[in-house]
Amino acid sequence: MTRDDAFAQFLLRMGDNTLILGHRVSEWCGHAPVLEEDIALANTALDLIGQTQMWLGLAGEVQGEGKSADDLAFLRDAWDFRNVLLCEVPNGDFGRTLMRQFLFDAWHSIQLGRLMKSSDERVAAIAEKASKEVAYHLERSADTVVGLGDGTEESHRRMQEALDYLWPYVGEMFQSDEADAEMVKAGIAPDPASLREEYDALISRILSDATLTIPDSSFAHKGGRTGAMHTEHLGHLLTQMQWLQRAYPGAKW
Amino acid sequence: MTRDDAFAQFLLRMGDNTLILGHRVSEWCGHAPVLEEDIALANTALDLIGQTQMWLGLAGEVQGEGKSADDLAFLRDAWDFRNVLLCEVPNGDFGRTLMRQFLFDAWHSIQLGRLMKSSDERVAAIAEKASKEVAYHLERSADTVVGLGDGTEESHRRMQEALDYLWPYVGEMFQSDEADAEMVKAGIAPDPASLREEYDALISRILSDATLTIPDSSFAHKGGRTGAMHTEHLGHLLTQMQWLQRAYPGAKW
Repeated sequence: MTRDDAFAQFLLRMGDNTLILGHRVSEWCGHAPVLEEDIALANTALDLIGQTQMWLGLAGEVQGEGKSADDLAFLRDAWDFRNVLLCEVPNGDFGRTLMRQFLFDAWHSIQLGRLMKSSDERVAAIAEKASKEVAYHLERSADTVVGLGDGTEESHRRMQEALDYLWPYVGEMFQSDEADAEMVKAGIAPDPASLREEYDALISRILSDATLTIPDSSFAHKGGRTGAMHTEHLGHLLTQMQWLQRAYPGAKW
Repeated sequence: MTRDDAFAQFLLRMGDNTLILGHRVSEWCGHAPVLEEDIALANTALDLIGQTQMWLGLAGEVQGEGKSADDLAFLRDAWDFRNVLLCEVPNGDFGRTLMRQFLFDAWHSIQLGRLMKSSDERVAAIAEKASKEVAYHLERSADTVVGLGDGTEESHRRMQEALDYLWPYVGEMFQSDEADAEMVKAGIAPDPASLREEYDALISRILSDATLTIPDSSFAHKGGRTGAMHTEHLGHLLTQMQWLQRAYPGAKW
């Protein structure tokens, strides 16, 4: 694996995370329980898609095959996606969507903080821009997790169920492979495992405020960030997300 | 509108009904409440898709633009479909799926009986073949509607809800326009309105055995068979149904 292969892989992982989660969150548009939350979710989705444009744009540049961010988003099939599985699981109820967002935002914010010191200036610049948005995502999702976790009996139950359901998808964010090792060596990105301590401290504090219990299990689904195995949900998501460019190739606004 | 335009329109209506309903029913595959019903639904879906092959195959022939049944099924967008809206509404629970099937089968079986006397031999031959399958569909869906309607308190309630939900979609099957008038004149197909009396007698008998009450309303949604207005559900169905041919144009098994 060359340095550029590893770099492209890293960029796809960053961009596919924000693309797939951004699409999922956009599915709430017009369906959230209150207007304020509907707008907030739509804005979060827009931020994530905007970040995707930057990550996948750079991925296309590094790949050097003339592919645009749009090409990478709309013309790859499931097995070429590199997002962690956490980003592709269905929304479930509002509580599960916000718990997923919180579990991702916490990782995302720590990761971007590290990437701001990347040896690659383009990566550092994207991380700098994205980190401001993600700081706000995290503040909002953490507040909501606390509000609903430490809320009514029903909201507490639902948030605990959401955490129990999503917990096995958390570990994948800290797994690493040859491409990650290459990125560490080049000073481009941190070792995923090195983020775990800070992550655990952050979510423990919030989830404790939310009166929720972190499951006592370190089992982690995997296969998303390597592309070895996605859930059945990704293919269904792509049929909808990619429909327009598939049905009308090259269509422009 | 030429005779052939009207004929092609008629054939698209027949084939799109069986295609879209066939796809909907196929969504149950692996999900029905008991094995026997799962197999029965999958077989019904296969019958309907098989009939689609014949109707859309002939539609392509009559259109004379070199389009195959596959082209018509997989490469048209929502506004070009001519199925009645009843066929595209979501499955809902098992009861609603079977009620929809019954309300369609009853019309389908009467329609095919008339088409067996079509002045066009190809239409008569397709109707002859399809009518044997549809006689069985109707027997099965009618039996199930009676069994569940006149079943437990919950199954009765669900079947009545299904009938109430679906009833406004029944009327469209008996509406007609210029293309239908052309078909009547040519002796190819009956006036849709002329099927209503037989239909009402048939479903009244079954729904009475099922202890269900036909809603006292003649309001009918429309727009499917003319293509003027489909429900939002058709577009979502197409993203999944057409995915493979859209993503891999010209792909063959």
